[in-house]
Amino acid sequence: MKFEIDKREFLRGLGLMQSVTGRKTTLPILSHILLEWEKDSLYLTGTDLETGIRVELTAKINQDGKASVSAKKLYEIVRELPEETVHIQKKENQWITLQCGKSIFNLAGLDPEEFPSLPPYEEENFLMVSTQLIQEMIGKTVFAASNEDSRYHLNGIFFVKMKLGEKEILRMVATDGHRLSLVDRENQKIRGIEEKGIIIPKKGILEIKKIIGDRGEEEEMGVYFNTTHGFFKLGKFLTVIRLIDGEFPEYEQVIPKGNDIKLIMAKEKMVNSLKRVSTMVSERMEGIKFSLKKNNMEMSSTHQDFGDAQEEVEVTYEGPPLQIGFNARYLIEALNVIDSEEIIMELKDEGSPGILRPPSFPSGFLNQFYIIMPMRL
Amino acid sequence: MKFEIDKREFLRGLGLMQSVTGRKTTLPILSHILLEWEKDSLYLTGTDLETGIRVELTAKINQDGKASVSAKKLYEIVRELPEETVHIQKKENQWITLQCGKSIFNLAGLDPEEFPSLPPYEEENFLMVSTQLIQEMIGKTVFAASNEDSRYHLNGIFFVKMKLGEKEILRMVATDGHRLSLVDRENQKIRGIEEKGIIIPKKGILEIKKIIGDRGEEEEMGVYFNTTHGFFKLGKFLTVIRLIDGEFPEYEQVIPKGNDIKLIMAKEKMVNSLKRVSTMVSERMEGIKFSLKKNNMEMSSTHQDFGDAQEEVEVTYEGPPLQIGFNARYLIEALNVIDSEEIIMELKDEGSPGILRPPSFPSGFLNQFYIIMPMRL
Repeated sequence: MKFEIDKREFLRGLGLMQSVTGRKTTLPILSHILLEWEKDSLYLTGTDLETGIRVELTAKINQDGKASVSAKKLYEIVRELPEETVHIQKKENQWITLQCGKSIFNLAGLDPEEFPSLPPYEEENFLMVSTQLIQEMIGKTVFAASNEDSRYHLNGIFFVKMKLGEKEILRMVATDGHRLSLVDRENQKIRGIEEKGIIIPKKGILEIKKIIGDRGEEEEMGVYFNTTHGFFKLGKFLTVIRLIDGEFPEYEQVIPKGNDIKLIMAKEKMVNSLKRVSTMVSERMEGIKFSLKKNNMEMSSTHQDFGDAQEEVEVTYEGPPLQIGFNARYLIEALNVIDSEEIIMELKDEGSPGILRPPSFPSGFLNQFYIIMPMRL
Repeated sequence: MKFEIDKREFLRGLGLMQSVTGRKTTLPILSHILLEWEKDSLYLTGTDLETGIRVELTAKINQDGKASVSAKKLYEIVRELPEETVHIQKKENQWITLQCGKSIFNLAGLDPEEFPSLPPYEEENFLMVSTQLIQEMIGKTVFAASNEDSRYHLNGIFFVKMKLGEKEILRMVATDGHRLSLVDRENQKIRGIEEKGIIIPKKGILEIKKIIGDRGEEEEMGVYFNTTHGFFKLGKFLTVIRLIDGEFPEYEQVIPKGNDIKLIMAKEKMVNSLKRVSTMVSERMEGIKFSLKKNNMEMSSTHQDFGDAQEEVEVTYEGPPLQIGFNARYLIEALNVIDSEEIIMELKDEGSPGILRPPSFPSGFLNQFYIIMPMRL
């Protein structure tokens, strides 16, 4: 049971496994990767039981076989190998022997039959979706998802298909209870997203973002969902993500209505001012106070130990004087994912949530907005 | 009490203070920097009581003054400011007001009179030394100094002037008890290093290395020592380092004699092989076994959980078969600071320390070698 593989091909595959393997230390085999070689391919599989990655690499197979060895250790070894062919042979005690140039390694292994298998997928279910669309929708929402383990159903992105007037759209929404980010795109067919929607966990979706980022030259990826998992296929990489089994909150009820006070701000100038005034926010609250007057906004912050900061920014504003507090970081993160030079902020009063949105939507987007809860300061 | 300063000039000075300020949290004022403005200069001072840095910056002074504010917070603020003039004014309660563009900051301060003053230096004691010489001598020794707090007298570089035959030389030595690195350079006059020698602490010397690295264009720096401190002046930066008050071990007694077994290795090939075999060393011992035969060296390692590694390397070796163990990391670190394509290793037997040295010395160096203790494997 032997195979040969080019060092660089092997290293590339192993590199993309590292982020899912070894996260959970409770089950030793999860720090391993599964190697399966047959016909002209080596398949690598790694999983943390929530996100699984499987990649097909080109290899020269002598006789079919399987092995399970430490993902980190194998990666460390292959990284240091000379740029030559790597020869791998399975031994009787589940170990493998790796030989390359004048180096020989014997690596401890576990029974590959014990490696947790990824949920089976059906090739014909995949429909091709633009990677740019997926990447942009994720980028504009994922940061707003909750990181608190206790709010499990908020630890992901809600992905739903719906009708908006005559149009079918795809919507992504994420919220941590303090803010909410929502984008709508024209429908691209994806199997398994219905009007009930699904919740894709943040950790898994960030893997997809990384894999697309690394392989940006490919413009489409295969995607589909069943009731428990999402399947993403880009080139020879398959990522399987276990969906969050929970109810996403009824976010449509919290979208403010009647936010009639409008102001327009220049994004870059606003971000720079926020960064400066942020240096003096308290670590726990991160709050900045905004005082609106005609065409002028003053921001101020106070830190109990270090002092205080204030700054004036020109804005387009015709409304009444108004004071309101917001979390500085939440505002900066929102402004960073709105791709327009000017941004509209819609307010009601000092106790009601604000809305941020671009004046118009980039190509293919039908809607994008961000809701942020106010703070008492 | 006001001054004005260019934002970039201010930021550059504040940046170099960050590594010494705030290391010790026992005394709040050590997280501060001292600002002193008079004539056409702003002086910044930061210290952790072992290493002090003072820099002179160009500023426009309205009236002389002093202040002490958080080094980190001031740096964070200035980093975010627009590229404009920064105006600073001292207030009555020790606070300062910083104004730049449309931003105003009030920063909490402490009484600047309480800021620990750096030891006074005498300008006329400085003699100019090549920064490259200092940088190279530090680079070839500092990694071998001990990091263990309990071995205080080994936590630095021993710096000594001595006669070698007719020549006066400068020598640097560092050791952690398991290895020792030594370099000799032709004498360049430095005041205060006598034949008794001094010990410069590792942390301080790494600051010097960083300051030289940042300002590499200047080819000479002023240096001198008194009985308690070292003074280093590069351009407008002064660094003062408190010397270690202890006896450096009698290292000359541990330099092996009679290491008659010689082998010559190709450095790059050797480093690559060591890195590969290192992947299977045990975390605690980090040991690699070397088996020497005629013109051949086999390296091997074993990790209790992951397996084992072995590799053969061609070397020039005519001696008897010999097996000896060394710490892999210590060997790699030594090879990295020997600037020759081939490296000579001199051994005696499996229980005696080995010596590594270049076949010849780079310009200006009179000697360089590295001693490494063997391991039982």
